[in-house]
Amino acid sequence: MDIERRSRCPINLTMEVLGDRWSLVVLRDIMFGNRRHFRELLNRSEEGIASNILAARLKRLVALGLVTRLDDPTHSQKAIYSLTEPAIQLVPMIAAIGAWGRRHLPVSQDLSIRAELLEKGGVVMWEEFMEDLRGIHIADPIGGANGSVTSAVLIRLTKAFLDVRAKMELNG
Amino acid sequence: MDIERRSRCPINLTMEVLGDRWSLVVLRDIMFGNRRHFRELLNRSEEGIASNILAARLKRLVALGLVTRLDDPTHSQKAIYSLTEPAIQLVPMIAAIGAWGRRHLPVSQDLSIRAELLEKGGVVMWEEFMEDLRGIHIADPIGGANGSVTSAVLIRLTKAFLDVRAKMELNG
Repeated sequence: MDIERRSRCPINLTMEVLGDRWSLVVLRDIMFGNRRHFRELLNRSEEGIASNILAARLKRLVALGLVTRLDDPTHSQKAIYSLTEPAIQLVPMIAAIGAWGRRHLPVSQDLSIRAELLEKGGVVMWEEFMEDLRGIHIADPIGGANGSVTSAVLIRLTKAFLDVRAKMELNG
Repeated sequence: MDIERRSRCPINLTMEVLGDRWSLVVLRDIMFGNRRHFRELLNRSEEGIASNILAARLKRLVALGLVTRLDDPTHSQKAIYSLTEPAIQLVPMIAAIGAWGRRHLPVSQDLSIRAELLEKGGVVMWEEFMEDLRGIHIADPIGGANGSVTSAVLIRLTKAFLDVRAKMELNG
């Protein structure tokens, strides 16, 4: 996919690629939620992304080489979306975005606990997570999508999120 | 300024605030180019930002509390734009965005040398730069705008950029 390339500055080019309302939110759901099918990305969206917007964003992310689309051999109707190596390498940038958002914007406890753990984990955790994501998305995307390949980091982050959410439910 | 708050996830909220084509590019020019007047931001834009878009982005950044607008006492027609503390704290995120862009997108040498130095400098350099930016934008915005307050980091980054650009001119 062509981008405009109004300048060859890395900040500008990254904004040409990811500077929109939804692309990084969709990548977040694939990365941290391991949502690999269109229906999951649509129905479980915390932000209530619209179906046509999700379809357009996924198509664009595939064209940009950030996501791959693979036919699911067990469900002929379903495609599996997976992260590519450049998308996996977004982990430190997403950690930095989460760290900033957590400090300066009105986040909720449950939806920010993963950003907090990712920030505290630092480079060591990001490297481990990226290595896990390579297993789930690149080495074995089908096993990664159906849960037969997992990630210790992802399990830890998901458990922390569910714990906070459960506490909020009980107190709410 | 109100944002939609479709969810209180830090990634989502940051994208609601900064997830557009131009906001971070404008902040970059204020931060790294010390362009503090509308005309400089417009005329020296590497991307050729349009006047109406720049005006709208600045207005929104002021409303969001990321930029302040101050009347320049020496030029009654001119306003000085300065970064606020939350915007200064974007430095690590901008470094991470630059690092990713530099690896995965078709950057040029001159426009990516600052991202390279910022990445290599790590947290120590980012902290020093943020402290300098507080001097230039918060403690003395007028002195910072007219060059009587400067930053060692900014001088180093600017010199590296101009050196690479000069080499490219000579070889090009």
